[in-house]
Amino acid sequence: MNDLTPDAAQDIPGLMREIGARARSAAAELAFASSEAKARALGAAAAAVEARADEIVAANDKDMDFGRDKGLSAAMLDRLRLDAGRIAGIVAGLRAVAAQADPVGSVMAEWDMPSGLHIRRVRTPLGVIGVIYESRPNVTADAGALCLKSGNAVILRGGSESFHSSGVLVDCLKDGLRAAGLPEDAVQLVPTRDRAAVRELLTMTGFVDVIVPRGGKGLVGLVQAEARVPVFAHLEGICHIYIDRAADPEKALRVTLNAKTRRTGICGAAECLLIHRDVADTIGQGVVRALVDAGVEVRGDAILQKIPGVVPAQEDDWGREFLDMVIAARVVDDIDDAIAHIRRYGSSHTESILTEDDAAAERFFQRLDSAILMRNASTQFADGGEFGMGAEIGIATGKLHARGPVGAEQLTSFKYLVTGDGTTRP
Amino acid sequence: MNDLTPDAAQDIPGLMREIGARARSAAAELAFASSEAKARALGAAAAAVEARADEIVAANDKDMDFGRDKGLSAAMLDRLRLDAGRIAGIVAGLRAVAAQADPVGSVMAEWDMPSGLHIRRVRTPLGVIGVIYESRPNVTADAGALCLKSGNAVILRGGSESFHSSGVLVDCLKDGLRAAGLPEDAVQLVPTRDRAAVRELLTMTGFVDVIVPRGGKGLVGLVQAEARVPVFAHLEGICHIYIDRAADPEKALRVTLNAKTRRTGICGAAECLLIHRDVADTIGQGVVRALVDAGVEVRGDAILQKIPGVVPAQEDDWGREFLDMVIAARVVDDIDDAIAHIRRYGSSHTESILTEDDAAAERFFQRLDSAILMRNASTQFADGGEFGMGAEIGIATGKLHARGPVGAEQLTSFKYLVTGDGTTRP
Repeated sequence: MNDLTPDAAQDIPGLMREIGARARSAAAELAFASSEAKARALGAAAAAVEARADEIVAANDKDMDFGRDKGLSAAMLDRLRLDAGRIAGIVAGLRAVAAQADPVGSVMAEWDMPSGLHIRRVRTPLGVIGVIYESRPNVTADAGALCLKSGNAVILRGGSESFHSSGVLVDCLKDGLRAAGLPEDAVQLVPTRDRAAVRELLTMTGFVDVIVPRGGKGLVGLVQAEARVPVFAHLEGICHIYIDRAADPEKALRVTLNAKTRRTGICGAAECLLIHRDVADTIGQGVVRALVDAGVEVRGDAILQKIPGVVPAQEDDWGREFLDMVIAARVVDDIDDAIAHIRRYGSSHTESILTEDDAAAERFFQRLDSAILMRNASTQFADGGEFGMGAEIGIATGKLHARGPVGAEQLTSFKYLVTGDGTTRP
Repeated sequence: MNDLTPDAAQDIPGLMREIGARARSAAAELAFASSEAKARALGAAAAAVEARADEIVAANDKDMDFGRDKGLSAAMLDRLRLDAGRIAGIVAGLRAVAAQADPVGSVMAEWDMPSGLHIRRVRTPLGVIGVIYESRPNVTADAGALCLKSGNAVILRGGSESFHSSGVLVDCLKDGLRAAGLPEDAVQLVPTRDRAAVRELLTMTGFVDVIVPRGGKGLVGLVQAEARVPVFAHLEGICHIYIDRAADPEKALRVTLNAKTRRTGICGAAECLLIHRDVADTIGQGVVRALVDAGVEVRGDAILQKIPGVVPAQEDDWGREFLDMVIAARVVDDIDDAIAHIRRYGSSHTESILTEDDAAAERFFQRLDSAILMRNASTQFADGGEFGMGAEIGIATGKLHARGPVGAEQLTSFKYLVTGDGTTRP
């Protein structure tokens, strides 16, 4: 680990440019590392995390002390905390990414042309990824692993709270790189808490190809506003559940409760419930009562306010990310009214329709354009692991390049490889 | 056609925002237009171009007069000119795009998860594409057709020289949209020559999803510097030909001559020739002599200057886009020296290795990261039509989203459609 102390006299732009140049050069080498070497590095990193678990916990204790002194909320402290179980989760994540297919070099498409040319479209790494995150130290391992798998170098800038924990995790990743004969600079942690480093990272277009911010709306909004480097991100997860006229009552109840209450602090948690008018008094009422019974504050429209425990929704409750045991709820006239509501208030993250009617599901899928659309499934599944990506570096709601959960595959670009036999163009 | 006269008093930002809002609303409708309707619109547009050929030629005559008055070069005037043959080419292009598979709605991947979820990744349109181009009126038809095919609305801003020609071509595309019952606002031409309209287009992030500039380095550089909207582009096409030690002499001669001389003004024309030391006096000398004989000014290094007719290369001839009967040429020590030269001076567009040695070709393909890498083929094939895309809206050298020739498929994004059966996350 480098010096941890913020130092006003430090040349932050110079430091960041040096980190960028080293990442660029590591990326050039990593771009054609063999699949075996990359998998070996990830396996060795997992072993290092296991072997150095005590050291990680001790570093995390320091971070927890710092966090308590700083007055972090209980929820923030919980995200920061690493224990044996969570460390085992990190190890499992590294091994899961190691076990996945290497996206680099895979042929996405190939075809022959009448000219005699054979054309292949082949995946290549993007180059250098910058990851800016808050307190969760496991992001260090997930982001490092996915970038390595996809042949990209990564510059990690964790929250100041997770500084020591992330430091040891990065050391473990470097142990892995060394064991596989790959360049250590492929994974670097910004060695200062100075926020000027973030501003620098966001504008180093010559050294960084993509920025992935992980954290709250404040962090992501700042990154989106100030970055000159392209950004893969979502600002908010304002996920909707729509209970259609043809919903199955039991599924509606089960899925809505899970989507709201399983974990309220994640971006895939449902924040708004829309209920078809025809089933408002039947399925809708049952679901709303169950939510109230489960301790959820339901902020309802005039119709739903008749149900005991429901409080009146204010205008700004629509399109609001509560990240808490709160949900906005209203009755809609029909599926098109639900679609219009989601288009107006949604954040293009994840929406789920509960219906047994194929035509309704098809309409919902076709007319909405969120990154993830679901049928009869909980929005809490909006997650790279649950999509089979081993892990995720983040979830993107933009439409360019990456969208939805971003795993190793979406951290790649491609090139065309064209072969002829002395072929000339007429 | 709207008013053609630049008008200082015109509210350009207001005008552009209105165009943007209409494009956004057309895009929402076009996003789920059927494949049949889109193909019908393109077919009807092709028929309209055929039927209105005289009108197009008359409009083009006006543009040619304007261009001559403005003092355009002979090359520029040639690009601007439309005659019966070129109009037939436009018609054929529209029909070729119509005949292609619709990318929208196609399932890119699908899989099942142990949770019981079935996940599909499905192509969707990007939304609204802005195309900024110079004098070539055929870009109007190609760009309009590809955007329509991919379900995107397009805002076209042609060069002032091609104003009248592009106007009639856009009218033909609108004829097609009308015939298929699709929104006419899906294809709009900016109805003013005022350059303020370009500045507005580049920053309308709420209305435009991607900008594609087509033209010289001046135009593209300006767009890249000023756009707040993402850009698909290449600044320059500094294409390299590398004659390897294991090159076939006859293929080397044929391909190099074609790559340099077939057409010198296109981005896929070769601008630099690298020759392996071991074959400099044999194959290399033959190729250089043939280039000189063909009227090419060969700017060579010290070794090649011994060949009659070769003039000395200056330092700034490396990495220079001549777009003329000029080529820079030097001898390299080996393939790695060639790769290093291309990495240093290339523009990540297209490079070709001439070799019979599979290992050398593999090394060239693996260690370089241009959008297009070729073996034993002319760089002049760097073109959407030659890649089987029917047409191209441009060629991109960036690594995000689109790369190489950009056809309809790369004008799409995707979304995840996830189906469960009341599935909840544990």
